[in-house]
Amino acid sequence: MTRLFNDPDEFAAEMIEGFAAASARWVRAVPGGVVRSTRGAEPTVALVIGGGSGHYPAFGGLVGPGLAHGAAMGNLFASPSAQRVHSVAAAADEGRGVLLSYGNYAGDVLHFDQAQERLRAEGVDCRTVRVTDDVSSAPAEEIEKRRGIAGDLTVFKIAGAAAEAGYDLDGVERVANRANSRTRSFGVAFGGCTLPGADEPLFDVPEGRMAVGLGIHGEPGIDEVDVPTADGLAELFVTKLLDEVPEGVSRDGARVVPILNGLGSVKYEELYVVYASVARRLEEAGLVLVSPEVGEFCTSFDMAGASLTLLWLDEELERLWLEPCDTPAFRRGAVAGRVAVREEDLVAAGPSREIGPSTEESRDAAATAAAVLDALARMLDEQAEELGRIDRIAGDGDHGIGMQRGSAAASAAAAAAAEAGAGAGTLLRCAGDAWSDEGGGTSGAIWGRMLDALGGELGDEHPVDTAAVGAGVTRMKEAIMSFGKAQPGDKTMIDAVVPFADELSARIAAGDGLLEAWTSAVEAARRGAEETADMVARLGRARSHGDKSLGTPDPGAVSFSLAARTALEVLAERGEGAA
Amino acid sequence: MTRLFNDPDEFAAEMIEGFAAASARWVRAVPGGVVRSTRGAEPTVALVIGGGSGHYPAFGGLVGPGLAHGAAMGNLFASPSAQRVHSVAAAADEGRGVLLSYGNYAGDVLHFDQAQERLRAEGVDCRTVRVTDDVSSAPAEEIEKRRGIAGDLTVFKIAGAAAEAGYDLDGVERVANRANSRTRSFGVAFGGCTLPGADEPLFDVPEGRMAVGLGIHGEPGIDEVDVPTADGLAELFVTKLLDEVPEGVSRDGARVVPILNGLGSVKYEELYVVYASVARRLEEAGLVLVSPEVGEFCTSFDMAGASLTLLWLDEELERLWLEPCDTPAFRRGAVAGRVAVREEDLVAAGPSREIGPSTEESRDAAATAAAVLDALARMLDEQAEELGRIDRIAGDGDHGIGMQRGSAAASAAAAAAAEAGAGAGTLLRCAGDAWSDEGGGTSGAIWGRMLDALGGELGDEHPVDTAAVGAGVTRMKEAIMSFGKAQPGDKTMIDAVVPFADELSARIAAGDGLLEAWTSAVEAARRGAEETADMVARLGRARSHGDKSLGTPDPGAVSFSLAARTALEVLAERGEGAA
Repeated sequence: MTRLFNDPDEFAAEMIEGFAAASARWVRAVPGGVVRSTRGAEPTVALVIGGGSGHYPAFGGLVGPGLAHGAAMGNLFASPSAQRVHSVAAAADEGRGVLLSYGNYAGDVLHFDQAQERLRAEGVDCRTVRVTDDVSSAPAEEIEKRRGIAGDLTVFKIAGAAAEAGYDLDGVERVANRANSRTRSFGVAFGGCTLPGADEPLFDVPEGRMAVGLGIHGEPGIDEVDVPTADGLAELFVTKLLDEVPEGVSRDGARVVPILNGLGSVKYEELYVVYASVARRLEEAGLVLVSPEVGEFCTSFDMAGASLTLLWLDEELERLWLEPCDTPAFRRGAVAGRVAVREEDLVAAGPSREIGPSTEESRDAAATAAAVLDALARMLDEQAEELGRIDRIAGDGDHGIGMQRGSAAASAAAAAAAEAGAGAGTLLRCAGDAWSDEGGGTSGAIWGRMLDALGGELGDEHPVDTAAVGAGVTRMKEAIMSFGKAQPGDKTMIDAVVPFADELSARIAAGDGLLEAWTSAVEAARRGAEETADMVARLGRARSHGDKSLGTPDPGAVSFSLAARTALEVLAERGEGAA
Repeated sequence: MTRLFNDPDEFAAEMIEGFAAASARWVRAVPGGVVRSTRGAEPTVALVIGGGSGHYPAFGGLVGPGLAHGAAMGNLFASPSAQRVHSVAAAADEGRGVLLSYGNYAGDVLHFDQAQERLRAEGVDCRTVRVTDDVSSAPAEEIEKRRGIAGDLTVFKIAGAAAEAGYDLDGVERVANRANSRTRSFGVAFGGCTLPGADEPLFDVPEGRMAVGLGIHGEPGIDEVDVPTADGLAELFVTKLLDEVPEGVSRDGARVVPILNGLGSVKYEELYVVYASVARRLEEAGLVLVSPEVGEFCTSFDMAGASLTLLWLDEELERLWLEPCDTPAFRRGAVAGRVAVREEDLVAAGPSREIGPSTEESRDAAATAAAVLDALARMLDEQAEELGRIDRIAGDGDHGIGMQRGSAAASAAAAAAAEAGAGAGTLLRCAGDAWSDEGGGTSGAIWGRMLDALGGELGDEHPVDTAAVGAGVTRMKEAIMSFGKAQPGDKTMIDAVVPFADELSARIAAGDGLLEAWTSAVEAARRGAEETADMVARLGRARSHGDKSLGTPDPGAVSFSLAARTALEVLAERGEGAA
């Protein structure tokens, strides 16, 4: 368990402070994460990696010459916000384009994609390569749905070496994609970690048992067996990974890099005992082992678990894998002379939103919005534990804490914006930025986008009447549907948002007042959230999650439904029915 | 806990196999451990480090250019035997002398000193620097009694860099001693590790509590407090280490290297949060921080604990600390071109004992000795758990497992020697080698030396009568007294061995037969062992161990007493009374 922290809410920020202080030879802190503290003679493509904190050396520990140029570091197990990714990428950019690379998780995809959009809008050529190495997270035909685990290292190392060698952005993207298509990992776990300040571990594995294929945040695995011997685990790892030789690779005589990774409390000696057996089995299968790595490359705090990764080499990948690099946690050979970056060369963080002119009516509506956000934050603070419990059943259990953090930040940002005289539109957009930035994960990104859409429609100078609110909610619905890939009926948050928005529009069109229409829409959201627990409809998803998710509603749909009801209470209390 | 192993008895051997396989860029396996797999242009002084296994990267992970030349790797938490140290040192020697350096534990001292004697006898100039950095293990006036913990790294790094820079043996010894005299560490623990195959952790710390000053094998600490915040721990670390500035150092403006070390399951993120606070406090105290290290440098499997080390620099130490090095687990900068060592250049292990001529009477006595050793091994197998329990009260809990392993190896070696026709002397000496080699630790070294002395006295061609056995036991007593530093009354194993030997001699001199004399001597040993639990006499030792050791006998005295009784049973059974 995690024992050493001060305020749990400040853990990630203090961790980054300590990391940057201890690692000044390689990195310096910028808003949102770290970038290199040295620069080479010629500008190169910038590799920007990132993800939630709690996986050290992923991601900050891999920044330095020959590897990454910057790492966006999110809260614990929560994607960095689009703002953080953008800030780090802007600081890392050397004018030859930016490659974003990260493990494939919904929250990271949303935030990195948003950052990519913004970078492109600013004229920076930006590409993305998602790492999808975990063979147990989806079948081979759906490789793009797989999670990224310890295979992050091979993709980052290859891309970083290519950038260092002067490849252009097309070239770096090409080899990173090839490295990903030739990297496969398989993991097991014996027990989960406990986040700072939490009372319970993220997940449990019964004593003497081993979860097979479990994800690094506790995402459900594919099987559970008795803890095997070291030989037994080596056999399992090698069998699983030789079962799926990447397309275009001939197994016989193939050259591979094996990476045996400890998740946190499976220690070096145990890993070496397993590695002795892994190496024997791979060689017996006719493979040639190149520059193996045994250690901790992608952890999950003190989670008890391990994974084996194979990178199937070709000539170019082997050359790039063996190139020198020098980072806080991964070093190889000798990197040619570097110079320290001067303070004044560092790019400042992007501007925060300006508070423009607004009408008095809009400022009144802003006060109501701030009151709603304040009530939401208090409600989500109370519900965080229960939402986490629901999320742990089929997901990674971070929904509660993410909503708690995000809504608290949004409420604080709204209060500050109101204080500064912002209209309704700007206040909601500031709150959305804060929710996304602090909440992290998928839910943070979605709520950030929803508030942004609502605020965009309401503006600061238009009348905020029932019709305007109805139109704002419709925009909100459209934003979330264009943003993620889920459709109504997929049993996600959408199944609460769509009925809510549709019922609200229909009732307003039929002449209802805001309170009346909203009351009816809350009921529709509640029914929608409940239906996400429908057993028959969930069967498809349950198949890849074990049976445990059957009968449990989607936590995002539940929290949206609760939020809609809380908003109704505030609106009623403030007598906004007449608006 | 440790989960991944095959046969627990083979754990260390398989670990070394896997480590060498994964680390061929830096090391190759030799009997007893590993040496570098590369060599520089010019021969240098050889730095040979070592200790028990379970502390990775200590010790094998620190072998490579700019750091150690070889590491003697013992069994789990047990000193490598003198044979192993000698074998590694002989392979590492480049003709310019050998510096042995290791953490200051009784077992390591015995074995490394024996190896040093043998190397010197072979004409190799050999010196020793013991690391004594743990301020909580003895007061400043008795610095030479302190244990070595994570400060190993500073002493090894400085010595390795000096060797690499071409210093002669005097010079390497001098800077290693200075580094040790300027290195201080302080550690805490939240919970112990469980060794492969063991049912219980080596020690427990109550939930929510923190043991202060606890050793890396669970040696008793100086206090127990509630788990503090990260800031609270940083405050404790910094206060304790600034309390004892090394002699000759001016604290104001001093340049120090801070090393924040995790013992296994206190992970990187937590360490960085603590480091942020440590760095702030050290800077506030006026120190200048040079090239800090945060990570895992000396672990104890997955023990939950951490320590802070400070190396107080001078100009020469700073230069050497910053020199490049390249090892499996610790790398810095760029090491100049190295060439791989060829197989045929590696020195073979030393010869095993030859089976010389022997009389039939001596071979008969050898059969009795083999039967006694077999009975000892069975008895110690049964008693291992209880002996471990006693040892855990004031020591590190490894006495039971060490005696079990050592006696099993001795019994097997005796059987093999008997099979090969060895006389009593050679058989006992072979058994002593095996006990020392496999049992490890202090008890392994002492039993090895006792059997060697007994065998030396009995020889292979002399009559083995009552007088000869009496003389042999006296030699055994003398050997152990000249070997360690303990005196009768210090409440150690000596307090059982001396009464046993003296009573045996006295009764034989008085005309008793062997069985009669031995019976009386067994009683004397039993009384001696019991008296080691005497509360008043133990007060002195207990002061540095907390109160817990009061009233518990010394485990080495207990096991000697049990062994004497077991031997009596076998002698009686075989009718050796008349001999």
